[in-house]
Amino acid sequence: MPQKIKGFSKLSKEAKIEWISDQFFEKSEEAIDLLKKYWHQDPKVQKLHDEFIENTLSNYYMPFGVAPNFMIDGKLFTIPMAIEESSVVAAAAKSASYWLERGGFKTTIVSTKKVGHVHFIYQGNADKLRAFFKQVVPKLEEDTEELTANMRARGGGIIDLKLIDKRSEMEDYWQIEALFETCDSMGANFINSCLEQFSQTFQRELKAQENFSKAEKAIQVVMCILSNYTPECIVRSEVSCKVEELNGDAGISPEEFAQKFKRAVRIAEIEPYRATTHNKGIMNGIDAVIIATGNDFRAVEAACHTYASKDGKYSSLTHCEVKDGIFRFWIEVPLALGTVGGLTRLHPMVKFSLDLLQQPNSEELMSIVASSGLAQNFAALRALTTTGIQKGHMKMHLLNILNQLEATQAEKDTIVEYFKDKVVSHSAAVNKFCELRGIEKPEAVKKTK
Amino acid sequence: MPQKIKGFSKLSKEAKIEWISDQFFEKSEEAIDLLKKYWHQDPKVQKLHDEFIENTLSNYYMPFGVAPNFMIDGKLFTIPMAIEESSVVAAAAKSASYWLERGGFKTTIVSTKKVGHVHFIYQGNADKLRAFFKQVVPKLEEDTEELTANMRARGGGIIDLKLIDKRSEMEDYWQIEALFETCDSMGANFINSCLEQFSQTFQRELKAQENFSKAEKAIQVVMCILSNYTPECIVRSEVSCKVEELNGDAGISPEEFAQKFKRAVRIAEIEPYRATTHNKGIMNGIDAVIIATGNDFRAVEAACHTYASKDGKYSSLTHCEVKDGIFRFWIEVPLALGTVGGLTRLHPMVKFSLDLLQQPNSEELMSIVASSGLAQNFAALRALTTTGIQKGHMKMHLLNILNQLEATQAEKDTIVEYFKDKVVSHSAAVNKFCELRGIEKPEAVKKTK
Repeated sequence: MPQKIKGFSKLSKEAKIEWISDQFFEKSEEAIDLLKKYWHQDPKVQKLHDEFIENTLSNYYMPFGVAPNFMIDGKLFTIPMAIEESSVVAAAAKSASYWLERGGFKTTIVSTKKVGHVHFIYQGNADKLRAFFKQVVPKLEEDTEELTANMRARGGGIIDLKLIDKRSEMEDYWQIEALFETCDSMGANFINSCLEQFSQTFQRELKAQENFSKAEKAIQVVMCILSNYTPECIVRSEVSCKVEELNGDAGISPEEFAQKFKRAVRIAEIEPYRATTHNKGIMNGIDAVIIATGNDFRAVEAACHTYASKDGKYSSLTHCEVKDGIFRFWIEVPLALGTVGGLTRLHPMVKFSLDLLQQPNSEELMSIVASSGLAQNFAALRALTTTGIQKGHMKMHLLNILNQLEATQAEKDTIVEYFKDKVVSHSAAVNKFCELRGIEKPEAVKKTK
Repeated sequence: MPQKIKGFSKLSKEAKIEWISDQFFEKSEEAIDLLKKYWHQDPKVQKLHDEFIENTLSNYYMPFGVAPNFMIDGKLFTIPMAIEESSVVAAAAKSASYWLERGGFKTTIVSTKKVGHVHFIYQGNADKLRAFFKQVVPKLEEDTEELTANMRARGGGIIDLKLIDKRSEMEDYWQIEALFETCDSMGANFINSCLEQFSQTFQRELKAQENFSKAEKAIQVVMCILSNYTPECIVRSEVSCKVEELNGDAGISPEEFAQKFKRAVRIAEIEPYRATTHNKGIMNGIDAVIIATGNDFRAVEAACHTYASKDGKYSSLTHCEVKDGIFRFWIEVPLALGTVGGLTRLHPMVKFSLDLLQQPNSEELMSIVASSGLAQNFAALRALTTTGIQKGHMKMHLLNILNQLEATQAEKDTIVEYFKDKVVSHSAAVNKFCELRGIEKPEAVKKTK
């Protein structure tokens, strides 16, 4: 039974690994060796990676691939993708090539505002609070001048400050809502620092008011925090062509394809069970670029899914229209991204990704990421409405099973050929492998049952 | 201007990298070198990673850390976390230690069913379809017997098959809804293969019906696919203690802490702007373990956020109650996870993570992941309702800025000490650094402005 430990974070990396090995791996050298083999060969680079988080022992490898041929707003991109799931990069590349021949992706930055709140409890007269708020706004701006100096120099800063009455939802609950333009940075630290200053200034100035009672002055600030929900930081990406140009698939006419495709999108619009999976596929394309470019995929996931539920029922992030002989397919998503700050200049693979994308600003990155999501969804719906998705997936699944069995390349070739026109299941693949080798089912396989 | 390319996927990895270097890096050896230095030192291991996805060039390093001292259902865990964001591992470890002294995390597996649908269009008599469906169910089961053999041997398989009338939402739209038990595998391939077989059998048997017209027999299957929304695959994790035991923070009484904490959760329950960020923090804790254990974080994100919106308004995944002197804080989330299949036995770092967790089954992993999410949220709300989150964040931010400036350890120590009681901004940090070195602002810093 493993023991608890005090002061683990203060141990050296070596000592941490030793403790882990003692407690969970019967002091096995193999476990230690595994962790160390995943270190970068240059200790300085490894140290950099170690310092990104706490208690770092090693690196988790997320495969880093690229999808070429993305034509976005008339410019050709090869998109970096960090993702562990098979088929995602291939699907992106396939859609990119398909739309390269049909005009590419066209994007619009709808808005770029970010938002944060000081959540507070005020037990007193509402009109007095409203009057005070109007009066204190210049002070809130003044006291954050040093914090916002850099952002203002780049054309950003605080855009708007509002007092919001939330008492219909919780007793005495109010907000200061602040809108920000954070230019090419994601802006989380900037926004949170401004909000904490607003809170201090607001409380200090309130204390100095003569017409407020002692109870009214004692507001309680519950928290000061940015919102990851950014419905005013929106990008739209679209592909379109004449219906007759949708001629890339055997066995289905362009007209039939357009109608089936549109219906598949419609189902995702009306059915949450489907919308979740539909949007999950979109996020495959989005997150892979988010990670490669050093952005925060949990923030993007949260924003996109909340946006998908904004009309009261969880729904699709993409939409489709077939009208006057034109097929249009588009996505509209909130993406609060940065191309400076955070990991963007620290993680060498992120630097590489941004260089590969020809150093986009945050708006260009929004366009690229949204297009990657749209491409992914197009590929998924195209497969689903024509051949089904299992054909491609199962081939990858088969290869994974064969890798696990440590099949040779010759064995792989034979078995892939064999399953060309058959349903792949784990047991069928293992049986075929054993038959080919003339052996019993290996232990490792029995264990997975 | 980069060129389009045909057959990129068929190039060798070396040739792909060369093309990238030619097109985007002016044939720079430096870019090539960077990618190669991120390869694993053992070419066989690297090949394994290369094959997980397509067009792989290198590895994106996600820092891999651990959070010790998690007491979950009476068992002590050190939780592996793969995440690029600072503070997450530290927060998890801090909450784990806090609750270790107060009884730890207690979890319940509420349900473990997964779901998939054959979405189809049927233009005909509804009663006839319902009668036919009843009759065809045994056939659907029979035809998937080979596919389900392994799963049945493990105690899983198809649990239920239902015909669902969706015509109120779209003309002629019906579903076959199938519930599955997939034991210790996530089950995506298994479910999708079963659904595609259902579709084939359903159509074949329908064609053989004498009482259906030709038009009625011509159903159109739009798609066969699992749902990532799994409201029947739910885990709950809870911490609780006497209010008086919430005595870990200076300057706030246990009673006040309990009330402030509960109110902060309440705000996330009623305000979508806050709920998004609140849940994002939870997902920091969840995704880090999901990635480390080889599960699919996009699937988990989609399920959790859809679940958060299930009552018509996006809301908190955690809840808090203070009653009869007892503080209770819990999370309820859908987590469809696997501990076999997928990457679990293929990615060496995933194997390591599962060994570190003492080879949990999928239900135990659900408990661990949910507890990690709850721990993360507890730490965030504790910081927000006491000192504010910026204190911790800004220290990390400061270190990142100093790393970017390539400050020495001595310079870092001096500057961290200097900012101990001051607000950190990028410009203030750079100014202090330059002052200390006695230099002008370095070029790299000017460029980031």
